[in-house]
Amino acid sequence: MRLRNVKNKREILAQSDCFVPNPNEKKGKWQEEFGNDHPIYLEIGMGKGKFLRELAQKHPEINFIGIERSDSILAKAVPKIAKDCTNIRILQYDASCIEKLFDHEISRIYLNFSDPWPKKRHARRRLMGTIFLQKYDHIFKSCSEIYMKTDNRELFEFALESLSQYGYRFERVLLDLHHSGVEDNITTEYEEKFMKENKMIFQCIATKDTAN
Amino acid sequence: MRLRNVKNKREILAQSDCFVPNPNEKKGKWQEEFGNDHPIYLEIGMGKGKFLRELAQKHPEINFIGIERSDSILAKAVPKIAKDCTNIRILQYDASCIEKLFDHEISRIYLNFSDPWPKKRHARRRLMGTIFLQKYDHIFKSCSEIYMKTDNRELFEFALESLSQYGYRFERVLLDLHHSGVEDNITTEYEEKFMKENKMIFQCIATKDTAN
Repeated sequence: MRLRNVKNKREILAQSDCFVPNPNEKKGKWQEEFGNDHPIYLEIGMGKGKFLRELAQKHPEINFIGIERSDSILAKAVPKIAKDCTNIRILQYDASCIEKLFDHEISRIYLNFSDPWPKKRHARRRLMGTIFLQKYDHIFKSCSEIYMKTDNRELFEFALESLSQYGYRFERVLLDLHHSGVEDNITTEYEEKFMKENKMIFQCIATKDTAN
Repeated sequence: MRLRNVKNKREILAQSDCFVPNPNEKKGKWQEEFGNDHPIYLEIGMGKGKFLRELAQKHPEINFIGIERSDSILAKAVPKIAKDCTNIRILQYDASCIEKLFDHEISRIYLNFSDPWPKKRHARRRLMGTIFLQKYDHIFKSCSEIYMKTDNRELFEFALESLSQYGYRFERVLLDLHHSGVEDNITTEYEEKFMKENKMIFQCIATKDTAN
């Protein structure tokens, strides 16, 4: 997601209750941060946060962490999160160092409309590639669970190959999510746009027994 | 595939060099039947045989077996197979008893445009379901390798879930085979029809290390 620079973004983030300024310090202590033992679900690349916000509202029994690289995008996302929403934390972070943030503390990862990095020489940057799956092994608690949505056919093909070759099994594969009878789908900002264009959305739920 | 009854079908099949009238007797002896030690590839539901015929012609170093339930369809398929094509055998057989035909002799299975059995109560009949995957374990030599093509979205979703849950990994997943740059694709009769309709064709190549 590309956004123009947002003025006062540092101030906006600092004023928010859900923004965690020094997330590295929380490694191994996320459960403490939330003050309960509820499972922690993570969205990597949360964008403007519609998905995370609605999901957290619907599931007070789950803790949610959203990470996003761009502070300009986060400055757009954070003010929309209700003050009384205690089960969300937001971090500015690059996913390539994700293993430095969590020590077997995450129960589920959401990858929504991730950057497809279509060029072969950039394949290493795809969030469903082996390099990232290895990192996720360090952050998943016990069972690994990845929920993925995308509009990009090639990225979805890549993900199905990569996840299965890494030992993930598919609990669900949908090749046209919005015409598959799924009723509890929470959309992202991107997804709303694609729906208007009648674009096919792909979804999979992949699990792996042990995080090693 | 539905076809009207073909007159003299028994005679047509009996006259063919590649038709094997009592295939059960060949169990454990298929390599002998071909008279060489080339790998044996199997197409379940070969229909009128265009795919098998062209593949066998292209790969004299491989033995091919096509099975089909309907003798009327086989009577259409068999006369098209060239007399000097020694690497093809054709059987009339129902796939539900496939484990009675082979004893760890098959290196690859092709499932092309199989019946989708769309009703939930018929799911047991789908050729990529657990019941059939268990049968295939008895017929695969060592590594299990399934090549599947379909135009049916729901069947493909089902196959990706079922195969991965059974321990298969995907070497290739293509969600639009004819626009994916694959150059060596051999089409079936059905596929030719779907191409004219500009219908999306799904393909996967799934492998599993041991047949148990």
